[in-house]
Amino acid sequence: MTDYKTSALRAPIDVAEYLMTRLHQIGVRSVHGVPGDYNLVALDYIPKAGLKWTGNVNELNAGYAADGYARVKGISAIVTTFGVGELSAMNAIAGAYSEHVPIVHIVGCPSTISQRDGMLLHHTLGNGNFNVFSDMNQTISCCLEKLNDPSTVAAQIDHALQQCWIQSRPVYLTLPTDIVQKKVEGERLKTPLDLKFPDNEPDRESYVVDVVLKYLLAAKNPVILVDACAIRHRVLDEVHDLIDKTSLPVFVTPMGKGAVNETHVNYGGVYAGEGSQPDVKSRVEASDLILTIGAIKSDFNTAGFSYKTSQLNTIDFHSTKIVVKYSEYPGVHMRGVLRQVINKIDLSKLSALPGPKVENQVEENEDSSSTITQAWFWPKVGSSFLKENDIVITETGTSNFGIWETKFPKGVTALSQVLWGSIGYSVGAAQGAALAARDAGTSRRTILFVGDGSFQLTCQEVSTMIRLGLKVTIFVICNDGFTIERFIHGMDAEYNDIAAWNFKDIVKVFGAKDGSYKTFQIKTKEEVKKLFADETFNASEVLQFVELYIPKEDAPRALKLTAEASAANNAKQ
Amino acid sequence: MTDYKTSALRAPIDVAEYLMTRLHQIGVRSVHGVPGDYNLVALDYIPKAGLKWTGNVNELNAGYAADGYARVKGISAIVTTFGVGELSAMNAIAGAYSEHVPIVHIVGCPSTISQRDGMLLHHTLGNGNFNVFSDMNQTISCCLEKLNDPSTVAAQIDHALQQCWIQSRPVYLTLPTDIVQKKVEGERLKTPLDLKFPDNEPDRESYVVDVVLKYLLAAKNPVILVDACAIRHRVLDEVHDLIDKTSLPVFVTPMGKGAVNETHVNYGGVYAGEGSQPDVKSRVEASDLILTIGAIKSDFNTAGFSYKTSQLNTIDFHSTKIVVKYSEYPGVHMRGVLRQVINKIDLSKLSALPGPKVENQVEENEDSSSTITQAWFWPKVGSSFLKENDIVITETGTSNFGIWETKFPKGVTALSQVLWGSIGYSVGAAQGAALAARDAGTSRRTILFVGDGSFQLTCQEVSTMIRLGLKVTIFVICNDGFTIERFIHGMDAEYNDIAAWNFKDIVKVFGAKDGSYKTFQIKTKEEVKKLFADETFNASEVLQFVELYIPKEDAPRALKLTAEASAANNAKQ
Repeated sequence: MTDYKTSALRAPIDVAEYLMTRLHQIGVRSVHGVPGDYNLVALDYIPKAGLKWTGNVNELNAGYAADGYARVKGISAIVTTFGVGELSAMNAIAGAYSEHVPIVHIVGCPSTISQRDGMLLHHTLGNGNFNVFSDMNQTISCCLEKLNDPSTVAAQIDHALQQCWIQSRPVYLTLPTDIVQKKVEGERLKTPLDLKFPDNEPDRESYVVDVVLKYLLAAKNPVILVDACAIRHRVLDEVHDLIDKTSLPVFVTPMGKGAVNETHVNYGGVYAGEGSQPDVKSRVEASDLILTIGAIKSDFNTAGFSYKTSQLNTIDFHSTKIVVKYSEYPGVHMRGVLRQVINKIDLSKLSALPGPKVENQVEENEDSSSTITQAWFWPKVGSSFLKENDIVITETGTSNFGIWETKFPKGVTALSQVLWGSIGYSVGAAQGAALAARDAGTSRRTILFVGDGSFQLTCQEVSTMIRLGLKVTIFVICNDGFTIERFIHGMDAEYNDIAAWNFKDIVKVFGAKDGSYKTFQIKTKEEVKKLFADETFNASEVLQFVELYIPKEDAPRALKLTAEASAANNAKQ
Repeated sequence: MTDYKTSALRAPIDVAEYLMTRLHQIGVRSVHGVPGDYNLVALDYIPKAGLKWTGNVNELNAGYAADGYARVKGISAIVTTFGVGELSAMNAIAGAYSEHVPIVHIVGCPSTISQRDGMLLHHTLGNGNFNVFSDMNQTISCCLEKLNDPSTVAAQIDHALQQCWIQSRPVYLTLPTDIVQKKVEGERLKTPLDLKFPDNEPDRESYVVDVVLKYLLAAKNPVILVDACAIRHRVLDEVHDLIDKTSLPVFVTPMGKGAVNETHVNYGGVYAGEGSQPDVKSRVEASDLILTIGAIKSDFNTAGFSYKTSQLNTIDFHSTKIVVKYSEYPGVHMRGVLRQVINKIDLSKLSALPGPKVENQVEENEDSSSTITQAWFWPKVGSSFLKENDIVITETGTSNFGIWETKFPKGVTALSQVLWGSIGYSVGAAQGAALAARDAGTSRRTILFVGDGSFQLTCQEVSTMIRLGLKVTIFVICNDGFTIERFIHGMDAEYNDIAAWNFKDIVKVFGAKDGSYKTFQIKTKEEVKKLFADETFNASEVLQFVELYIPKEDAPRALKLTAEASAANNAKQ
């Protein structure tokens, strides 16, 4: 401990109040998590700072919810307790790291004195090592700060929160019980955190811009391909300005769904190699220059690495570098480069050929059967149900692939975990997303599509939605188990089956009062049409829970392709 | 890869079959886990080796269930998938490490070729690092083997399984998709694994035995105190032989509950410092020599470090060392030492004074109110409900402390997580324990006591019980939230509240068919008495789900003490 003196502080404030106030300043309004005895006193400061406590049902769900909240509100926070709580949240935090989502993870820890003395406390491994769990978090946090010394705590908090926002990844803070009420300088709170990404070095940026423009103006049929990191590293304004100014055709990857206004005249559809619609595939692969913005070229985002594009025809814009063909320009953020390209481009020299038109292909996928098919359902969602500014969450499995076939109205935000792919994610994420929309003062609808197998992992987060009065519309796709896995291996294997639940009755079990929810069983196309035409259903004024029956061997086209590639990759010798 | 030749194998067998066969040989009959695309082909080998797939609802529950299975059946196995699956199980595995429970954790991984090429696969952090998650497991596994090379795989598996058993802690195996069907030497399977703990060095052991005997025979009123590691490191035969031969009074710690036959004439009760019954406390603390067997002197196991005993009056028997007063004897396992003490002791020189008598104190805790109290309920469970050989699982919270007041019939196995203390554990553990009892060919009853707050975290494991037809009797103590935390901090804090569920209706939602289950709402002492007197209820022929109402501010005596100590420790400056 330093010779830090509380008496020298101009406006002494408790550590926990400082931390919670900073969270409020950067946009957090609700704090996710589960109480545990090492974090209880810290939780007392949540209302004091004008925040609300979410009180999730378990820590994994809390982590998923924090992820969903951050994707809608910009950033989020979760409080867990030492060992047991933080480890339960680990999968969610790793997912946020993988998918570039900014979550402030605060872990209530034993006091610094207990740690120093190596006490044999509950929630430890019994070996006196209090660093085990923080060590595990090193590789899934972009910044890790142990708040052990009051003289540095305020600066540590500020640094971590800034890094969380700028790097758009989780940060990890340990808050020991004896530090919670230590005093730090409250005057610091008058200076807002600087969350601006540092400007690029001007000469370096100009150099890259010139290179980009040279190739862009020389290209015959350039296109734009927008991916996940364009959303997560906040360059969507630049993307839209680029589209508006250049009129270049724009496509999105699966992870980029929702990044661009899909009603824009230049919007050309979802590109994912072999998983694309034929006209999208041919148009993108015929392009002699693809500007990819924020690409994450993972297996599931590319329908099993099935791009037929060449790096020689590609310029990649990232938050840490620009790659022009095989030339790398490290240390340059795409935001500045895109802005300069927009400002400097000479449109008279640009060749902007139109791309394909996208529509929700409902009629094309009609058939004479009343059975709901994946091919028919997803375009139908786009044509008859979704509205402007909806928030759409899809689960790993058929939903994540089906949504490729849904053309969104303007302003739709799409949440999914295409890279990390943890089943069960979407139920927690939907809670967080709906809460974020409400905390942001909007009345956006939150709509969840989740398979029956995945829903079972995290079902109890519906209870949090109920308790908080969040009016989520939940579609549980009842198709008897893990369909995505059936297509990878074991179509009829017992391990891909699940227990048959009475799904919709769960809402009442989880405490919903009569009149505060509605449930539906939908088994035919006609019933879907009727549901989507129902004004009350569309108004989403209560929590709505829909059992939607689709045969277990039915999967979206793109899922089949990707699963096949995945199985081949697993077996590769 | 070595120049290993499949053609040189005498009895080639696939890696996964080798692994599953070894699991069967060491006592596993059901494999816990959740399917995921990196483990699917391996799962095909489970039935081939005569094993059954449990198919848990999520990985955390699977981990808890594996823990419960191992505590009843001796060892267990869980299969998860890379990244997402294994991280979800992490809290459970860390708990098993902390509490010395042997679980074989098998993680299905991307192929060695994908790993070598650093492919951007789903379930990765997107950075090409395939070692992140195994690195995290280093500190919570007693052995970690990456099964990457067919020439060493069989030996690695044998070594890991042996260590798992001997050290009684989790081991971690990565099984890449391209290794699952590689060939290894099947002839090895004819030689069973050597699971015997190595004998102590004879001279060293004799020396320690002489020291122990010297002090034991010199003591005026020695007692035996049995703790967790006596169970986990399998010296209960030695413990009982020692009691029978010496007639010394024997006590158990909270973590040692179930270690000794509580109907034995020498059984004196639960010792936990201030948390003990007065006559137990005075008897143990008056002893001039306490033989502690397998002690874990953690905060919750000692009612907040409230032992009033002296190390000068203590001999500690561990699996890795013996400690006589302040003299340490490392590298000596308690088993051999205890056996020699039993064999060599001269009873004519031993002073064995009787200890206190223990009864279930039902009448002492009766009052005029019909309200069920913690003080009344737990002795009542012992006097009127439990039977020989029952398996009793208690959750962290009021149940874990309440059970101190329950005197068990002979042969009762008690499961709890007093050191690790992860709420929600008990629901998964109950599934695993019940399955283990069935797999062992017994008809032991499995009885779970869990609070409403904790139940919510892992409720869906009841679905697995239903699917597998396990006839667990579940008591959900409905007391409106986290009572243990209320006593630590925030008696009326919102964060200690939970959503009000219709708990018992969950059984039907989770797929139980009419006639295959019973539910009960029990709100008065009379109703408890009637329930415990009901022969059908006692027969446990179906899954039974009991909502048991106890006021939220009521807690067992020992919980109040321990919570107070915990709060003081958290606040220590």
